[in-house]
Amino acid sequence: MDDTIDMRVCVLGLGSMGLGMAASLLRRGFTVTGFDPNPDTLKRFAEIGGAGAHSPSEAAQGADVLLCVVVNAAQTEAALFGPDGAVPAMAAGGVVVSSATMAPDAARALAARCGEHGLAYLDAPISGGAVRAAAGELTIMASGAPEVFRRLQPVLAAIAAKVYQLGSDAGTGAAFKVVNQLLAGVHIAAACEAITFAKAMNLDIAKVYEVITASAGNSWMFENRVPHILDGDYAPRSAIDIFTKDLGIVSDIGRGLKFPTPIAATALQMFVMTAAAGMGRDDDASVARMLAGLAGLDLPGMKR
Amino acid sequence: MDDTIDMRVCVLGLGSMGLGMAASLLRRGFTVTGFDPNPDTLKRFAEIGGAGAHSPSEAAQGADVLLCVVVNAAQTEAALFGPDGAVPAMAAGGVVVSSATMAPDAARALAARCGEHGLAYLDAPISGGAVRAAAGELTIMASGAPEVFRRLQPVLAAIAAKVYQLGSDAGTGAAFKVVNQLLAGVHIAAACEAITFAKAMNLDIAKVYEVITASAGNSWMFENRVPHILDGDYAPRSAIDIFTKDLGIVSDIGRGLKFPTPIAATALQMFVMTAAAGMGRDDDASVARMLAGLAGLDLPGMKR
Repeated sequence: MDDTIDMRVCVLGLGSMGLGMAASLLRRGFTVTGFDPNPDTLKRFAEIGGAGAHSPSEAAQGADVLLCVVVNAAQTEAALFGPDGAVPAMAAGGVVVSSATMAPDAARALAARCGEHGLAYLDAPISGGAVRAAAGELTIMASGAPEVFRRLQPVLAAIAAKVYQLGSDAGTGAAFKVVNQLLAGVHIAAACEAITFAKAMNLDIAKVYEVITASAGNSWMFENRVPHILDGDYAPRSAIDIFTKDLGIVSDIGRGLKFPTPIAATALQMFVMTAAAGMGRDDDASVARMLAGLAGLDLPGMKR
Repeated sequence: MDDTIDMRVCVLGLGSMGLGMAASLLRRGFTVTGFDPNPDTLKRFAEIGGAGAHSPSEAAQGADVLLCVVVNAAQTEAALFGPDGAVPAMAAGGVVVSSATMAPDAARALAARCGEHGLAYLDAPISGGAVRAAAGELTIMASGAPEVFRRLQPVLAAIAAKVYQLGSDAGTGAAFKVVNQLLAGVHIAAACEAITFAKAMNLDIAKVYEVITASAGNSWMFENRVPHILDGDYAPRSAIDIFTKDLGIVSDIGRGLKFPTPIAATALQMFVMTAAAGMGRDDDASVARMLAGLAGLDLPGMKR
């Protein structure tokens, strides 16, 4: 067998993305340890063959590669460097692969701190959703030293269908992901605005979906999210709070650079309004429910 | 030969869309008359075999089918009912096919007036751009009496790859097109915001295009318009002023219905800002030039 599977891999954060990545690695024969604060999640990890631990530090003991698949920069910092943090426990010369969406500056700071501990760092945001994570078919927008990409090749091959190698500096991968999230967030909010606007005009919204997905008004997000609205199904595939966070990062970066992002700022406010109405943990298509609730429109699955 | 080509068709408005539709009809053997106030345009129409006229009235003399492919509701009304307007000249029992993007109420009013003159009306906005117009491969979002669709079948087959039959009432086709334009306008403005934001973060924007078009942040408009920005080519395929108009219609309808459209409203303001900066007749991707100009970013083809 290929000796690369001797690499010990640790996954921190076993939500839908992290668990899918862990499953993809286990299928390829890697030994995978992991930690998540949620006991149910840890149990599912054990069921697919993972070795769960009681802390990031315990999970990372002797790990050659650490995949950090938590929600944001603060959680990443806590998992790596907090009490019971993973970094001091890792094997000498190991690699930290960080996948949370964060500002480029945050990625650069984490890379520098890993370097101080003698660890390499791959700035490696992911895209594709839970289904593709489980299938080992994520898209990874990564930056880091070419040598690190080479060492990680078998790991990346196990979890991703496509790895973009975007440069050698930490922060570049993060910046590409932030651009993607700007567009994704705006397109979700616009899809919700358009489909409720169509409902306000008394159109058959299933027909609107059919026509728009074949027209120049289409987007990846319109095509993917509007079916949730047509089905009235707001079980979270990806939650409103993800975009209050990610469009918040866009907004912070824009202010820092003195670069205006008026559309992203408006979309952010629509996610904030939806969270304010109590739907922060619901599916991000809930922006449509928020607008329909305001305007008294009868969409499927309305709470009020 | 098929006797349907005995139908006399008149095209009013011979811009890139109307001329393409006329060319498609001529290729199928229809006799096509037409009018456009621009003499150069009329000359091109004559070169492809059309019979140009000096007024809508002259062009529509005895026409069975009239395609009105002008810019907005006001131009449509003038072409049909103004001085030298087409409607009184048409053959008894003819059909007016109206393709300008307009509010549903405006389409209903035009249909009613055509009815008073004994003419049928097809509310038939088009989508697809100049290239597909020339190829006879437009998408038509149409509403009108089923009998009118049947009678027009050979005409619609000549100009369109796809005809959506969206109901029997005028106004429904218009409303579908307005929803498409809401999304199209927002997606163009978002594409321009995202690509200039990427430039502000010092990213390689050609690489951003490659990554985003393969990711969840993609839209039809991002994929179609960002190449104009990468090439610095702002020759108008579709102009900024089209979207100050179409998002203006969205905004007017929203206020009338008391339905909020915050994202469309913000996108509208970005097109208005771009028009204010003197680029109203340039390609609609000029929103990127407007933002880059504000922020002193060096995009290809910048005027300043």
